[in-house]
Amino acid sequence: MGEFELIDRFFKRGARHADVGIGDDCAIWTPSPGHQLAFSADMLVEGRHFLSTVNPRDLGHKALAVNLSDLAACGATPRAFLLSLSLPRVDESWLSGFSEGLFELADAHACELIGGDTTRGPLNIAITVMGETPQGQSILRSTAQIGDDIYVSGHLGDARLALEAFRGNLSLPQTAFEQARGRLEGPAPRTALGCAMRGLATAMADVSDGLLGDLGHILKASGVGAQLSVSSLSGLMLTTDAWACPREWMLRCVLSGGDDYELVFTAPQTARDRVAAVALAFGTPVTRIGSIQAGRDLQLLDESGADVPNTFRSFDHFA
Amino acid sequence: MGEFELIDRFFKRGARHADVGIGDDCAIWTPSPGHQLAFSADMLVEGRHFLSTVNPRDLGHKALAVNLSDLAACGATPRAFLLSLSLPRVDESWLSGFSEGLFELADAHACELIGGDTTRGPLNIAITVMGETPQGQSILRSTAQIGDDIYVSGHLGDARLALEAFRGNLSLPQTAFEQARGRLEGPAPRTALGCAMRGLATAMADVSDGLLGDLGHILKASGVGAQLSVSSLSGLMLTTDAWACPREWMLRCVLSGGDDYELVFTAPQTARDRVAAVALAFGTPVTRIGSIQAGRDLQLLDESGADVPNTFRSFDHFA
Repeated sequence: MGEFELIDRFFKRGARHADVGIGDDCAIWTPSPGHQLAFSADMLVEGRHFLSTVNPRDLGHKALAVNLSDLAACGATPRAFLLSLSLPRVDESWLSGFSEGLFELADAHACELIGGDTTRGPLNIAITVMGETPQGQSILRSTAQIGDDIYVSGHLGDARLALEAFRGNLSLPQTAFEQARGRLEGPAPRTALGCAMRGLATAMADVSDGLLGDLGHILKASGVGAQLSVSSLSGLMLTTDAWACPREWMLRCVLSGGDDYELVFTAPQTARDRVAAVALAFGTPVTRIGSIQAGRDLQLLDESGADVPNTFRSFDHFA
Repeated sequence: MGEFELIDRFFKRGARHADVGIGDDCAIWTPSPGHQLAFSADMLVEGRHFLSTVNPRDLGHKALAVNLSDLAACGATPRAFLLSLSLPRVDESWLSGFSEGLFELADAHACELIGGDTTRGPLNIAITVMGETPQGQSILRSTAQIGDDIYVSGHLGDARLALEAFRGNLSLPQTAFEQARGRLEGPAPRTALGCAMRGLATAMADVSDGLLGDLGHILKASGVGAQLSVSSLSGLMLTTDAWACPREWMLRCVLSGGDDYELVFTAPQTARDRVAAVALAFGTPVTRIGSIQAGRDLQLLDESGADVPNTFRSFDHFA
């Protein structure tokens, strides 16, 4: 199978919103009047971001999900993406599963594949995604205000738990393992929640490298500090009901786990009812975990208000 | 050096046209009113698209050049790009050279780096580029008309000649080798010429996989055939003056060489003076090599009008 047959068979579909989709030198797209564009790019490398044993369908899902999560973090509606794919060989079964997982998620978000590249080489998946927000309504990291509440969406820490189980560092009961594995391999980008936070959240980021690291980006960009309540974190793991995670593991996974693809955001205290209403409307749990403070420090406080030493590190590919 | 320090040191510069550049979950960009967007993505893999011995500065240049060439082929003005980079290690000297070559070309085209990703893994460079054309003025592959002239810009075949010399398949005098190597490692995207062809060229593509293959895309998309005059091809190699390339090598390199990053385009016969004037204005040689015909065949004709057997194949990563 040649390069163009591969594209035709697994990736080319008729243009939908695009003026010109796959098959010309460029894709051509007419942006919506009165909107800003949001762009993000993520690259997934075998052995680094995923195990070679991962189901290709899950991988196709995840490769796009991590990009949609970045759009969600800016409150952007997904529109289109480009896929560059380096493959060691043409494996039709793999390509079939990968493209199915990819398109299932893309279609669910009306995000159209408009272009890309295929080449031979070590397995590498590079996606660039494009979304839109009404002019001036993008939600940035740099606009958190002192006194704001800090929230996280959904569940944190389970993906890291699954990774530790895969690595043999801990043993989980089957139910908890399957739940955790689902979070690692099939993250659901919080697109609807992110878009609903336009005009409500003061700052937002997605949690991909660990909560402390990603909240840290908001604090640094906004020039503020934060207090987090450790007691608010204990219910964040999805697996909590199926398995009593030791506190030390729980803190490590929730605070610096990575691969969560949830949203961390700030909002004024006066907006608590509206935040709760949005969470309810979109069926996404939202947990208030702390508040923005003057200064630059990120403090962890236990139930009695005492400092918990912060020894947690977020993920860094080159550290 | 950590991931964020690497980005800060080698790739982060202040936002120029972008509303938000590197450093948030997404880049935010306000498109020009009344314009269409053009998108293209290319992935370069070590050992496949470039030799491990290539100068990193040249590689930074080429990684962006091949993408700008796709924009040029649609008549799009470059605006912004995203870079995803997988690196086996942090090599400061390599990163410094690579980013210098990249930004030198980016700045020459006012094309802004607005985002991307860095990770550890086998060397892989994936760029997505975005450009603009006035609404409805993108130049496609699918609109060539019977009777149109066929042109190519600049020089063809020298990049392949350099590759064959690197492989030891032929021996070139030093002057010719340096010229050919310059074409392989430092291609100049035909941005100005491509944009000037708006409203003039009926169809256009860039020559990246070999002239016959890329012209073939125009023919297939437009549902037409073509006749090419072999005698018009002999002057296309830059190295012609420094070295008398044997005819068989010349034909192979010019017709199916690849890595040329020139433009092949069609225009009405009545536009010959305008095409010549644009070529002169932008200092880019343009050569008329044939004409669009009814049918679907691509015929090569020699000086006497006799068929030349077409045994030339364009490049395919998976063939």
